[in-house]
Order: sequence, then structure tokens, then C-alpha cells
Amino acid sequence: MGMSGNVKIIFQPAGRRGEVETGISIIEASRRLGVDIESLCGEKRVCGKCRVRIEEGFFEKYGISSTGEHASPWQEEEGKFITPSERKEGFRLGCCARVEGEMLVFVPEESRAGKQVVSKAARDIPIEWNPAVKCFYVEAEKPTFQDPTGDLERVLKRLDSECGLRNLTIDCLALRRLPDCLRKGDWKVTVAVWMNKEIIRVMAGRVEDYYGIAIDVGTTTIAAYLCNLATMKVVDTASMMNPQCKYGEDVMSRITYSVMHEDGLERMSNDIVEGLNSLVVQACESTHPPKKKAKECETSAAPPTYLCLKPDDLMDMTIVGNTAMHHILLKLNPEHVGLAPFPPVVHKSLDIKARDLGIRVNESAYVCILPNEAGFVGADNVGVLIAEEPYKSETMQLIIDIGTNGELVLGNKDKLISSSCATGPALEGAQLSFGMRAAPGAIERIKIDPETHEVDYKVVGRETWRSYSKPGEMGTKGICGSGILDVLAELYSSGVILKSGRFNPNQKTSRFRKNAGNHQPEFVIAWAEETSIGKDIVITQKDVRQIQLAKGALYCGCKLMMRRLGIRNVDVVKIAGAFGTHVDRQKALIMGLFPDCPIENILAIGNAAGDGARAALLNRKKREEADWVARNVEYIELTVEKDFEREFMQAMQIPHMKDDFPHLKGVVPDEILHQK
Amino acid sequence: MGMSGNVKIIFQPAGRRGEVETGISIIEASRRLGVDIESLCGEKRVCGKCRVRIEEGFFEKYGISSTGEHASPWQEEEGKFITPSERKEGFRLGCCARVEGEMLVFVPEESRAGKQVVSKAARDIPIEWNPAVKCFYVEAEKPTFQDPTGDLERVLKRLDSECGLRNLTIDCLALRRLPDCLRKGDWKVTVAVWMNKEIIRVMAGRVEDYYGIAIDVGTTTIAAYLCNLATMKVVDTASMMNPQCKYGEDVMSRITYSVMHEDGLERMSNDIVEGLNSLVVQACESTHPPKKKAKECETSAAPPTYLCLKPDDLMDMTIVGNTAMHHILLKLNPEHVGLAPFPPVVHKSLDIKARDLGIRVNESAYVCILPNEAGFVGADNVGVLIAEEPYKSETMQLIIDIGTNGELVLGNKDKLISSSCATGPALEGAQLSFGMRAAPGAIERIKIDPETHEVDYKVVGRETWRSYSKPGEMGTKGICGSGILDVLAELYSSGVILKSGRFNPNQKTSRFRKNAGNHQPEFVIAWAEETSIGKDIVITQKDVRQIQLAKGALYCGCKLMMRRLGIRNVDVVKIAGAFGTHVDRQKALIMGLFPDCPIENILAIGNAAGDGARAALLNRKKREEADWVARNVEYIELTVEKDFEREFMQAMQIPHMKDDFPHLKGVVPDEILHQK
Repeated sequence: MGMSGNVKIIFQPAGRRGEVETGISIIEASRRLGVDIESLCGEKRVCGKCRVRIEEGFFEKYGISSTGEHASPWQEEEGKFITPSERKEGFRLGCCARVEGEMLVFVPEESRAGKQVVSKAARDIPIEWNPAVKCFYVEAEKPTFQDPTGDLERVLKRLDSECGLRNLTIDCLALRRLPDCLRKGDWKVTVAVWMNKEIIRVMAGRVEDYYGIAIDVGTTTIAAYLCNLATMKVVDTASMMNPQCKYGEDVMSRITYSVMHEDGLERMSNDIVEGLNSLVVQACESTHPPKKKAKECETSAAPPTYLCLKPDDLMDMTIVGNTAMHHILLKLNPEHVGLAPFPPVVHKSLDIKARDLGIRVNESAYVCILPNEAGFVGADNVGVLIAEEPYKSETMQLIIDIGTNGELVLGNKDKLISSSCATGPALEGAQLSFGMRAAPGAIERIKIDPETHEVDYKVVGRETWRSYSKPGEMGTKGICGSGILDVLAELYSSGVILKSGRFNPNQKTSRFRKNAGNHQPEFVIAWAEETSIGKDIVITQKDVRQIQLAKGALYCGCKLMMRRLGIRNVDVVKIAGAFGTHVDRQKALIMGLFPDCPIENILAIGNAAGDGARAALLNRKKREEADWVARNVEYIELTVEKDFEREFMQAMQIPHMKDDFPHLKGVVPDEILHQK
Repeated sequence: MGMSGNVKIIFQPAGRRGEVETGISIIEASRRLGVDIESLCGEKRVCGKCRVRIEEGFFEKYGISSTGEHASPWQEEEGKFITPSERKEGFRLGCCARVEGEMLVFVPEESRAGKQVVSKAARDIPIEWNPAVKCFYVEAEKPTFQDPTGDLERVLKRLDSECGLRNLTIDCLALRRLPDCLRKGDWKVTVAVWMNKEIIRVMAGRVEDYYGIAIDVGTTTIAAYLCNLATMKVVDTASMMNPQCKYGEDVMSRITYSVMHEDGLERMSNDIVEGLNSLVVQACESTHPPKKKAKECETSAAPPTYLCLKPDDLMDMTIVGNTAMHHILLKLNPEHVGLAPFPPVVHKSLDIKARDLGIRVNESAYVCILPNEAGFVGADNVGVLIAEEPYKSETMQLIIDIGTNGELVLGNKDKLISSSCATGPALEGAQLSFGMRAAPGAIERIKIDPETHEVDYKVVGRETWRSYSKPGEMGTKGICGSGILDVLAELYSSGVILKSGRFNPNQKTSRFRKNAGNHQPEFVIAWAEETSIGKDIVITQKDVRQIQLAKGALYCGCKLMMRRLGIRNVDVVKIAGAFGTHVDRQKALIMGLFPDCPIENILAIGNAAGDGARAALLNRKKREEADWVARNVEYIELTVEKDFEREFMQAMQIPHMKDDFPHLKGVVPDEILHQK
């Protein structure tokens, strides 16, 4: 076993085994073998989420000769996340330790990137029917010696005289299908035309229904809406984790990955394209009968209960995503959008043949990628805007899209400004000691008794709260994004932490303690016996600071934007994204995530970015509207605004000066609201 | 050695060896191993050109066990081309005999598809500069915090303000190169724009010269003209045999091949695309220094003597070809264009991304395929028309393009009509006992003494005529297209054949004889000792009939078209194609290929189809002109014209009634011209 060549590696408990070349990191080896290890920071050695245990002696135990080291030498950075005693047990960071010899790697439950429970349903927003792809039925004449004109020209003649379509072009792949379709349909065909410009498919006979798909490529989740373009009905919604998560949790990590690895952009792009392809297949399969009844699709005798769609049936696709997702999908170098002054490669919407991106829908179909605004405020935010249309509204709206990055839009029909703030992934549960995605076992709701400081909570995937369960039934793993705000708001309202974010020295339970290792104060949310990871789940002082930084960034952004527009109050706060759906509006207000507003005017608008993609799919005018709004929203770079640092420091307090939050009166106890 | 699985096969004298599956024809096996066997009829078992000799005993001789038959049983059709004694020697037709066991196959010289000598130079025709792709140099501004607009929008702004280009789109692959080009060129770039619509390439800094290529896909030959789009200069011309020739010599054979073989269209299309790609490479390589001086290209110190172009430097491509070549290239089913009433799949010109056709030039470049007229009168004829512009002329022009198919255009600025006639490949030397392509050893000029009927001739690749050579030096192989007309005209003018085409019973040499086998009359052109094929090269009565059929079809077509236009004379006869370049105008007139015309008004216009492709490459208005003329030339289906059969019978006579050919007086002896 030398320093070069391939070596065996096994990952437990997944049981995945295979050979990898020596010298690669354990986390890279795990990717090759299809094991997902958490890597929130994109291998920058700062998140500590990729802790694994190397069982050195394994191969010797089974008589396989093993000389030399199994893993590369210990790195200083690992000491931040691994105690000396853990180090003795074989713990390492997957991003630091390189494979030097055969090894068995145990991935602890908290380091596994689990399958997330995603909820991105399509909302009912009003959309006018005007899809970019429309179908036309025509009956052409058969060729004769008197009129031996070609196939295409016969069809074009009818499209002109009966549908008013002139100067049409045809995609060469659609043209290839034309002669057989015409003869199969006895010179009667249905023609799919894109933008009244180009024939993208010809089908024999009369076809009434045709389909398209709208996609929201989120940093963490990809959501798809399969729609009937004729009826505008949503046939199915499907979603999956963004397969790029393994390269880093947030957009900066992914940009870093693409800069640091020569084939990084290529790999991440291919991963997302393959993701889109499997999502398309998944959405289509939902229109098929259960496998055992597959024959129903083939016989035409029974009424067509199932649509039995194939990817080839999808005639159009729209995509939204933040600027980084947009660039990576299109294989556009994202390096510069990550460097001041953050110029993207392109703003305007793009119509690209799906086949040029490797996306497998109808072979001649286009994909419309909506435009970017500026910096990281990308096509996803444009999607939100064309779904919510604040530029048509009299009321002053603040639209917050808290994904892995925070995107803000403020304004009304007179003016719209946008900005992006580095909330970081803390509000989604990352970078915290026990943060995790909204997967089963994640704490999503919590209550802390102000009198006793006792804790009650519920986890994703289990209806019953802790107080009504046996400890061993909970299987608690960590705290997810929507839960983290609950935790902080409760810690604050109950007096466990002060408005500065520091732990109150006057505590009422043994849940408050100093960590045995680093002597930092921490508060136990769940005792080890309630968890599936075998240790206490705590909130540390550092965790509180992380949340404060995130919420401070968001609140500071809102305040600076309001200052720019010269307003003191907003009429409506709209929270987009999964965060908005799950968050407790009152607790968000308590935490001061955004400026004060009557609670009834704080609205969760769900996956508005996806709604925008769907609107653009079903109405081509919305694409023009998207290009217009992307050009006309003024982008504010917050970090260069006057007094940014001072505003940011102030914004970290919980809650802010009482005068700014009249709607909190009665919600938070007065003695807490008025503390100094 | 059984009936299934793979078996060894060796082709001699090429020495190619390999394994093929049992059951395929010998001709198919030869293709797989890269050996070109002639197949003029496309394996329809009617041309007899694919005769090979199977050396059954070969493997046994070398101790390789061999039981059972090597080839499939003898077919009745083979008897037409193989005598009983040849059969005993092992002769078979490559299209009939299937590989059943290991075999050594000897391919006689006359059955080899040799490399043709091609001469398709670019003529000097006046073209106005207005290429579809134009380059623009712009200096964009660097992004700042005050103006963090994206890369593309910065370039678009300059293209708008300085070049007047609005609403430009960009190809996604060109977009990928943009950010690095902009920074490499310090925000100064040259942008290639297609049709004032789409950016297809961005280059760092200022680029003066840029390139394109015009292609004429002939049934037999493909010619390419590499042009500087900025200066309109022809940088290089390159040509090659159409790799589809192995599937059949004429368009009907290829259409038949595509109908008979499930993957036939795919294979032929891929072959032509690969041919185009190698032609592009060939043209580019001509701009590089000789291999040993390759370094000159890399150092920028010396003045740039060599352009060193790469396929990626070609920004545009135009293609012409007859309807069958057009369809096969684009993978459009050519079946229906071969069946009455012969409708093509499409007439209009098509702009297709080169990458969608698998053509490797600049990755974002378009290919413009010129429009088809009707039936087999395709984009090649449109090329001829936009090069010659008869629709702008006062004089009545007859334009004849004799390729493997005969295409005719008649008219002037008032009206143009076109038609296609089944000359068959006889005029190109195929389907004759000793017909061949214009390759070395092919008879291209001939003289027959009217007194003695002795023969003198010269062959392609050898300057010296037979009478000045030793017999063994000639290496004669057969008669090529341009020679065949010489032969017939001389046979007639010298009195060896009569105007009916029959051999004159009154012969003066022993060259006239009856064939020992089939007792048909034949005339020896070259004795065995002068040939490299070891037997007398003769013209048979059947050969004369074949030529008469071809020339009759052509002449009949001309006459019917003149009748349609109500004219008795044409002012000018233009002969396009290699045939026109090589043909002796006087002998063409003697043979009555076309109606009488003053010899000085019979013009060879060379590869006018290629000139048209080049005109369309350098001037986009010529593409519109092409679409206009393709719609406005009236196509005449000759075979359904009144009295077609009677006209055709009459047209076969050599020469026609003397009154129709006043310009023949003094050219052909009076006693021959006035024979009854």
C-alpha cells in the first residue's frame, strides 16, 4: 500500500465500498461512492459538520496487510471541532483527512446529509393564459403533380391562412419528424409553435393537451411544477434536494468550489442538470399508473385515466434561481459575481435550447431562464416579483426571501429597490452546533416556560410534542431553520437570554451550564436520552451570536432600504420561501427580523419564486415583464451604504428600541421589552 | 466455424483484415474494414461493378481449420456479370455473396473505388460584401459599485450606441466565453454577430479578419471554399469524394439504400457530416506552415506568414446540394422525394446551428442550407442560379448542370422554368462496360481516324497520348465521363456508328468485332496490352445505347422546356459542373446534348453551384435572393408533359435533323450530317 494508486475504502453505516485513488479527501471519496456527508462550508474547514471516525485497525483485523498511515496527518483546524479524546477515538474532519491507505470510515448520524422533507406546493395565483408555446391543428393538402410543393411549405401555408402565423422557422429536429407525422396523420397535424416564431414539434392528428414545466432552482431545494399549457392546470409538483449541496451549503461555498477546482463548474453544472432531468422524470412518472398496471397506458380501450407523460411531451420549461445557481446551471463563470462590485455575466432572460443544456424534455424545446437583477439577487427574486407584482401596488411592500441568502425588495408602483444581505445559512439551521435541515428529527417548534425555564418541543416527522412522549421515542437530531427562530424567541421571551443576546446570569434550571470542554455557556434543549445522536442538543452562546448576526443583517438591510426610500413604516411584509411558510410570524417579529408591522399584514407567500416561474411558463408576457422589472428595480449594495456598520451593530439587538416596535406590546412581557 | 458469430476476413491487395459478423454481404464487410469497393447501383445487383474473387482455400493453406461454406450460395443475378469460367475462379458479386466463414477476398483493380482527381476551383464572380456574420470591435466600461451591471449588458450597450445593433441575443456557448474574454482583453472585445441578431462569438481585443466556408455537396464530389469574410478572399479550396459513394453512385441508389436499411439514413448522414468535418480540417490545415515549421505559428515575433486557422475560427457556413444530398445531410427522410409526385420535405433555406448537425466549426456558428426548388432540383441548382443570375438577364439562357442527375433551367428576366432529367450516370462514365470516374488511367480524350478507324487517346494523369507512348506505359483503366462523349462523337464523326446509334456494318479495322461471349457488337478502344486491367477496353452496342438514353433525356428536356416557353432558339448555353469544364463543346454539340447554339455562346461555368454557396456566404442578400428564386422558378415535371415519349425517342438520334443544327455545318462531314 503506497502513496499512489487505488485503495479500498468502506463507509459505514451505509455499507458503501469501493476503490479510490490515494490523496483525495475523505469527503471527496464519500461523493465518489455516493455517500452524502454534510459539508456546509464547501470544504473550507470552518463548519465542522463533516466529522467522521476512521477505524484504523479494520483491515488488519481481517488479515489484510496494511503498512503505513491510513489517513494524512492531523491538521490544526480539526482541533476546533474535535476534542483530544475524540481524536484518540479516530475522529477527523472529512475535508481535512486525506485517504492514504485502505480505511473503514464511520459517518456519525449528525454528519449525514439526510434526505430533506420538502414542501413547495403551487399556490393559486391569477395568471392570464398566453403560453410561449401554443399548439395549432391544421389539415394540409396532399401533394399532386400539379402542386408537388414540399411537406413543410404545405403546413406553413395552412398556418398562415388559418392561424395567421407568418415567417415561421422550424427546428431541424422537428423537421425530421415532419414527413412521417404528416403521412401518419393523413396530412392532418398539430403543430407546436414557440413564440409565434418557430415550430418545435409536429404531432400526427389532433392533440388537445400539451405540457410544460416550471422550475425553481434553490440553493438547497429544487422544485418543479408540471403544468398543462392548454388548461393551465398544475398536473404535479415535484421537488428534490439540490445535488450541489455536497459541494457546499451556501452560494459562496459553491462559487469557491468552482474557483478552487478546475472542473468544479463543469461538475456542479452537470449535477444540477442531471438533477433537473431526474426531476422531470419524477414529475412525468406521477402521471403514470402504478407500475403493476403499466399496461393500461398502452391499451387505448379504457378511458385515459392516466396521462402517461414522457419527458418528450414537455414543450417548454422556465427556470428561476439566484445568480449563482443561474450561472452554475448555464456553466457561466460565477467567480466575478462573488467579487466586488459583484457583476453577473448576464442580466437579461435567455432562451436556450434545452438540448444545449443537456436537459431532456422535447428535443426541440426551449428553456427560458428568467433575468437576474444584480449581484446575488437573481432570477428567483424576479420570479417573486412577477408573482407578487409590487410594481402594480399602491401599498408599500417589503418582500423578504430568506433562503440561504437573504433577498429584499421594498417599494410600490412608484419605485422598487432591492438588496441582498449575508444572512448566511444560520436562519436555516446551518453553522450552529446542532443546526440541520428540515429533515425528520429536526426540532421545528419549541416552548420555554418563563417560570421554570423547562423546555417542550416537537420534531419534523413526529406529531407528538416532547411532553407527551417517552424520551426514547423522540429521535431528535438537531434544530432546523424554522425551529431556530422559535428557540431564540422563546429563550428571549422566557428571560433565558437578554436583549443583548447574552445568557441571563439568573437561570432557573440545570439546563444552563458551561461546556465541559470549551467552558462556553450553553443551554440544553434536548437531553441525550431524547436524541438519536446520543448526546445533549444545546444552544451555545456562539449559536445565539450566529442568529443575531443573521437577523441583524436582515433587519439592517430593511432599515437601510427604508432610509433610502425615506419611509418610516411598511404596509405589508411578505415572506417568501420555505422559511416564510414555516416561520411563526409573531416570533419573527419578536426577534426583530424585519421592521415592525401589524401581524395580520405579515404574509407568508410560499415559494413565490416558483410561482413566478409558473407564471412565465403560462404567460409569455410575464417574461417581458420579468425583463422589464429586472432592469427597473434599483439595486442597493448595502455594505457601501453610509453608517452600514453602526446600523448593523444596532440591528443585532433583540428586540430593538421599543418605539420601533409598537406591535410587540402585549406580545413580549413588558419587563423584557423594557430591559436596558 | 458456424453460421453465427464473428469470422476473420482479409481484403487484398489492400491488406485490410478484421473480424465481421457472419451473414453480412462482402461489400458491407469491405465498408467496415475501410476498403472501398465500387457499388454504382447501391447493391441493387444491376451494375456488376462490385466483382470480387474469393480465394476459398486461403485459410486451409495456412492450417486454419475451416469447414462448411465460406460464402453464401450463388445467386442467379450474378450470372449476368460473371461468366461460368470466372465463376470457377471464385468470382462473385460483392453485393450478392454473404460472408458465411473466414475468407480472403481479392478486389480486382476495376472494382476498386479509386480516389478521384477533382478540380473545382473558385471562379471570379462579382459579389457584394454583406456577410451574414459581421464582427464589431467595442470597448466596454469596467463595472463599479455605482454601475455593477453585468458583462453582457456592458457589451450590448456599446453595440447599441456605437454599432446601432439592438435586441441582440447571444448563443449560450458564446456567453460562456464572455467573462474571461472581457477581462483578458481589458474590456475591449471583438464581437461576431449573425444576421444583426445573435452574438455567436466574443474575442478578446481587436480582431480584423474572420472566416467562413462555402460547401457544395455533390453526389460524387464535395467542394469547399474557405473565405475571409472581411476581405472576401478565397483562402483555400478543398475537395474530396462524397463518402456516401460507397452506398451507391446516384441519388436514387442512395435513397433506395436509406429505404432498405433501417439505419441507412443515419449512416449516410453521419458519413457526409464526417466528410464535411475532415474537409474543414483539410481547408484549415492549408493555412498552417509545413509540419516541421509548426513553431512559427506559436511565436508572435515573426510576421504572421501563416493564418494558422482552426475549425473554431470558422464563423459561418453555407451549403448547397441536390435535394437528395440536402435531405440526407439533414437526416430528413428522402423516401418521398423519390416517389411521384416527388415532394421534398422542405423547400425554404434553413439556418441550423452547426453543432446540431455535428459539424465542427465555431461552436456557436450557424450553417445556412440554401433552398430546394422542386423534385431533385435542389439547393445546388439554386446556387447556380444566384451565381449566374439569369433572372436579371435579357438573353434567353439555357443552364445545364450535368452531374449524376441532369438539371435544366431555361429563361430570362421575364420567366424561369426548371426541370430535372434522368440522364443517369452514363455521361459520367458509370453503367458502361468500362466506365469509371475521372481518376488516373481514365480515357478523357480520343480521336478516331475517319479513314482507318484507328484510335488515339489520352488518359487522366498522363500527358502523353497513346500514339506517342509505349503500350505498357498507358496503364489505361476505363473511360471517364468527359471522355465518353469524345468517344461517341468520334465514333459518329468517323462513321463507326450511324446516327441511329447502330454500328456501321462497313468497318475499316479489326477493332470492330462480336463479343465472344454474348455475340454483341463492340469496338475496341484500347488493347489489353495498353491497360492495367489486362483486357481490351471496348465500347459495346449497349454502351452506345446508354449514352443515347442519357443524351436523349437531356435533349428532350431542353426541347420540351423550349416548347413550354414558346421559343425556337436559345441565346446562350451554360454548362455547369465538372462535366462542363472538361467537355469539348463542339463534341457536345455534335452529340446533340442540347439544342443548337453558336459554339462561342456555349459557356462552361465551372462549379457554379459552389459559386452560389460562396456568394451566399459573403452576401446575406443572396440568401434572400435564393429563397425568392426557389419559389419563383416554375418546375416542369417532364415525364408528364404531352408527347414526352415521342420527343424522347426522337431525341436519342445523333445528330438530329440537320435543320435543327445549323451550327454543325462544317463541323461534322456533310455525308454524315445528311445520312438518313
